[in-house]
Amino acid sequence: MEQIAKLLRQYHAENPFPAAPANLYEPCEYILELGGKRLRPAILLLAARLYQDDPSPALPAAWAVELFHNFSLLHDDIMDAAPLRRGKPTVHTRWNLNTGILSGDAMLIHAYQHLARTGDDATQRRLQSIFSRTALEVCEGQQMDMDFETAEHVAIDTYIRMIELKTAVLLGCALQMGALATGAPESDAQHLYEFGRLAGIAFQIQDDLLDTYGDPEKFGKQVGGDILQNKKTFLVLTALENASAEDADALQKLLQTDASAGPEKVNAVRAIFDRNQVPERTAAAKQAYETQAFAHLDAVQLPEARKASLKAFVEALFVREY
Amino acid sequence: MEQIAKLLRQYHAENPFPAAPANLYEPCEYILELGGKRLRPAILLLAARLYQDDPSPALPAAWAVELFHNFSLLHDDIMDAAPLRRGKPTVHTRWNLNTGILSGDAMLIHAYQHLARTGDDATQRRLQSIFSRTALEVCEGQQMDMDFETAEHVAIDTYIRMIELKTAVLLGCALQMGALATGAPESDAQHLYEFGRLAGIAFQIQDDLLDTYGDPEKFGKQVGGDILQNKKTFLVLTALENASAEDADALQKLLQTDASAGPEKVNAVRAIFDRNQVPERTAAAKQAYETQAFAHLDAVQLPEARKASLKAFVEALFVREY
Repeated sequence: MEQIAKLLRQYHAENPFPAAPANLYEPCEYILELGGKRLRPAILLLAARLYQDDPSPALPAAWAVELFHNFSLLHDDIMDAAPLRRGKPTVHTRWNLNTGILSGDAMLIHAYQHLARTGDDATQRRLQSIFSRTALEVCEGQQMDMDFETAEHVAIDTYIRMIELKTAVLLGCALQMGALATGAPESDAQHLYEFGRLAGIAFQIQDDLLDTYGDPEKFGKQVGGDILQNKKTFLVLTALENASAEDADALQKLLQTDASAGPEKVNAVRAIFDRNQVPERTAAAKQAYETQAFAHLDAVQLPEARKASLKAFVEALFVREY
Repeated sequence: MEQIAKLLRQYHAENPFPAAPANLYEPCEYILELGGKRLRPAILLLAARLYQDDPSPALPAAWAVELFHNFSLLHDDIMDAAPLRRGKPTVHTRWNLNTGILSGDAMLIHAYQHLARTGDDATQRRLQSIFSRTALEVCEGQQMDMDFETAEHVAIDTYIRMIELKTAVLLGCALQMGALATGAPESDAQHLYEFGRLAGIAFQIQDDLLDTYGDPEKFGKQVGGDILQNKKTFLVLTALENASAEDADALQKLLQTDASAGPEKVNAVRAIFDRNQVPERTAAAKQAYETQAFAHLDAVQLPEARKASLKAFVEALFVREY
């Protein structure tokens, strides 16, 4: 993993944004330096290393995925009116709305420029197709997420589709592109895509669970944030579909209280979750996606030893105790 | 030209945006239908027809350029806080800010998806490179334009660079991509790029001139709009560089009055322009770019008759009387 982190740091250092116009590119550099974990490019390079010891031919594609991810964070922060990201002011807060929009646009185009450096002409065309399809799906997922805010009823399946589009497909795309960049057969690359997509759904369900049930010391952020923001999470939708009419009613009412509500609201919602087996149901759903995900990794036609690093990396992202 | 307009209408009809999520794609369709003249895709197809009687292989690239142009309008309208476009509510006014941002993002990605359908693998890679470079330049031009609003002094050369990036390079890109899509040699495609770029600069200077000196009946919008908005146009910068100290001072003061000023402000600014030969200087600058532009068309290694349609189309975009 240290080799991969080093490759990414080098590539970034060797490929800075242009110096001018400073008001366009400084915010791009700023958000990249907010301490993201470079998860997506790392996973892309791990997939590349399945087929070739040196993953560097996949580096431009890895960086493209990181730039795309940061573009989406930048614009999402505007749409969510988020003042902070990782404890620092968001771009539109530190600069302004226009800067947030335009710097995001420039990052998206930069992502395409880096992607364009990867692979021979035929591989390049394949990567372009995967990348654009995924980028569009991420936008569609963000739109669904915004639509949910005003929707009266959201079905669990629709919620799963939203998190699949908004976050999971980009993991699948990263794995698939990394593999194709170093000569993977299409069938393996497809299994890797499914591995990433399904693991991505499992991670998002896990995130929902941790937000309410995570150990604050391990989790590192305020427990109950989703509840206070009245978010329609997997937990809430599971409760609404499975709870008694009385509990479902009570939950609906709690979800209409405003942001000034405090820990007593979190406790009341948790009590409803607890007596309707919501954490158990959620953990089971997460587990089901996780199991499906690893079955696709198993189906990749390579020796187990070759897949060990990637497998260990993804397994470590799953939290076993909370 | 009717053949080309028909091809574009057909391509649009056969390639609608997806139906869902409606809140994402309806605004994309809305802005496309606001009555734009499809100038850029038309010019791309005219360039394609230089090398092949049937320009349809270039259609996806033509549509990509139109989608890109509309993406930039959509986001620029937000940045300019423009309530109306062609007399209709802008997307962020009719829907909301978030829709404006996200639908714009989706249009940009759609542009890449259409572009990806054009040409064989090697041509495709070349087109991607031209398109991304141009797209980034358009963002840089928009950033420069926004920076000018608060800049104390803008040099004419810097202004020319801004309009080159913000609007002219996209015309160059359209011509170059159209030609390459139907097998033009690189040298011809490069001359066509320069033709578009230089003509684009001339058009923008012409726009500045018409905004103050155009016949309102022919021009179709309020004369003096730029003056009322205190825009640093080619006229203003030419006046500031060439006028007497007294006139330059008076102009600076007029440029600081607010939007409630009326026709007397327009008349006062025009009087300063008039006595400092600003319209003549501006027309001369426009003519110089126009002449350079057509020299590049002349350098394209094709019989004159083959170039006649493209030449006539671009010539008709220049206004001879105002």
